[in-house]
Amino acid sequence: MEYDIAIIGGGPAGVSAAINAKILNKKFIWFSSRGVSQKVARAELIKNYAGLPDVTGAELGWTLNNHAESMGIERVEEVITGVYETGGKFTLLAGNKDFEAKTVILCLGVQAQKPIKGEEEFLGRGVSYCATCDGNLYKGKTIAVVCMDKNFEHEAEYLCTLAQKVYVMPFYKNYRITAKNAEIILKAPTEISGGLKVNEVVFKDSKIAVDGVFVLKSAISPATLVHGLKIEDGHISVNRKLETNIGGMFAAGDCTGRPYQYMKAAGEGNVAVHSAVEYLSRR
Amino acid sequence: MEYDIAIIGGGPAGVSAAINAKILNKKFIWFSSRGVSQKVARAELIKNYAGLPDVTGAELGWTLNNHAESMGIERVEEVITGVYETGGKFTLLAGNKDFEAKTVILCLGVQAQKPIKGEEEFLGRGVSYCATCDGNLYKGKTIAVVCMDKNFEHEAEYLCTLAQKVYVMPFYKNYRITAKNAEIILKAPTEISGGLKVNEVVFKDSKIAVDGVFVLKSAISPATLVHGLKIEDGHISVNRKLETNIGGMFAAGDCTGRPYQYMKAAGEGNVAVHSAVEYLSRR
Repeated sequence: MEYDIAIIGGGPAGVSAAINAKILNKKFIWFSSRGVSQKVARAELIKNYAGLPDVTGAELGWTLNNHAESMGIERVEEVITGVYETGGKFTLLAGNKDFEAKTVILCLGVQAQKPIKGEEEFLGRGVSYCATCDGNLYKGKTIAVVCMDKNFEHEAEYLCTLAQKVYVMPFYKNYRITAKNAEIILKAPTEISGGLKVNEVVFKDSKIAVDGVFVLKSAISPATLVHGLKIEDGHISVNRKLETNIGGMFAAGDCTGRPYQYMKAAGEGNVAVHSAVEYLSRR
Repeated sequence: MEYDIAIIGGGPAGVSAAINAKILNKKFIWFSSRGVSQKVARAELIKNYAGLPDVTGAELGWTLNNHAESMGIERVEEVITGVYETGGKFTLLAGNKDFEAKTVILCLGVQAQKPIKGEEEFLGRGVSYCATCDGNLYKGKTIAVVCMDKNFEHEAEYLCTLAQKVYVMPFYKNYRITAKNAEIILKAPTEISGGLKVNEVVFKDSKIAVDGVFVLKSAISPATLVHGLKIEDGHISVNRKLETNIGGMFAAGDCTGRPYQYMKAAGEGNVAVHSAVEYLSRR
């Protein structure tokens, strides 16, 4: 099945894009984790989302989610780890699954943390962003799980049902990992290292031997996701129509640059879909 | 009094800009007619304003208005008819009043109708966009009032209290003009003509002699408003930061181009204020 539009990301830009793709009757697929990201949820009081005065981040997140759900829009909870253009269409990889689409809208957000040293280098060689995609590769083995957001805690728990031993590094407060084979490490790794494949996680004053590392986070670096995508000052380079340098690929929200604002992101999700639809009608 | 930011226009882009200017603690002035424009009010059902599913245009308009009012934001109901840059600051004219600001954000919408032939040529020479500004000039005289939007009906009525004879041309249904000295004309003028000053309004098959013509509408042509403003394909030319070709002048919403969407407009109002604040801090 080839989709007209694939939307990657579930923040305000992604929700807005999904709503617009639905209204414009496009065959689309929306990759997004359920729930509200920590980043949105942490916002205490948002006063400038026009039409919703004085909402908390969590309220805004749920309001946007509910809007999409009220229209019967479904999200696919796969983490896209690579997007490739071949023959005028895009292939999106999520572990060993793949999806095809004529256009792609990247709503990736911005990374709060920089990638760990070695993370991008070893991606696909022992580093994975997707528990459901790659978890099975580590049955009975020893892994590390860097969990950037409480939303992904259930994925860490899931990995504990597969691997023999799991070092979990939660990057948030009030973590709650119950699996008996989990060992919590409250230190930030300084490096993921290895030879052909990952074999250890390094800390400032120690290291642990592992067979693989899962980095569970909501924002994946655009340059890692899409080879050849033009990046400027750390953001995806787009024009007023939100076209990237790759024909048929668009971007919206924080990943296109400052200001990092909900309203700006939602507006861009709207525009990106209109540009994608225009692109589809030109083909 | 010199303002940091002057916002012109009360549609979704203008409201969003006003909200953001308030939050960012800028000294700003917001020119906007009260109430919801006919164009917004005419929208039957808006499904893609993320966070407000299934609102009518009128509901969305009032929701945005209420958001601004809940923050104590006041609007100035003057119609700006000219913006001039002098010595690194802007002077905004509303009839015989003027206002000064370091930056200007144009949220002008788009004109549904093209200007009437002669309208822009005779602006300030018998053609006026502002009843409260220029009404006094026509005490005891004969005028024509082209009323593009029911929102401006009270201005037409006000002009009837000043002029001796008023030809009113309503461009909408269910008009209600009660003044005894008003004569309703249900034809569209083809031209406003005259010599040094306006002296007649021309129709396809007739003409009337007048001393002046008021054109009451919510969107004034940007090129008429700001001399030297760069226009492309009928829209104000802006970059991703919503900067126009004039330093310190920004634009947001429909006036910057398609898609004509509430969400896009609100997002741009947000971004334009951030760009204006950045500009102010650089000065």
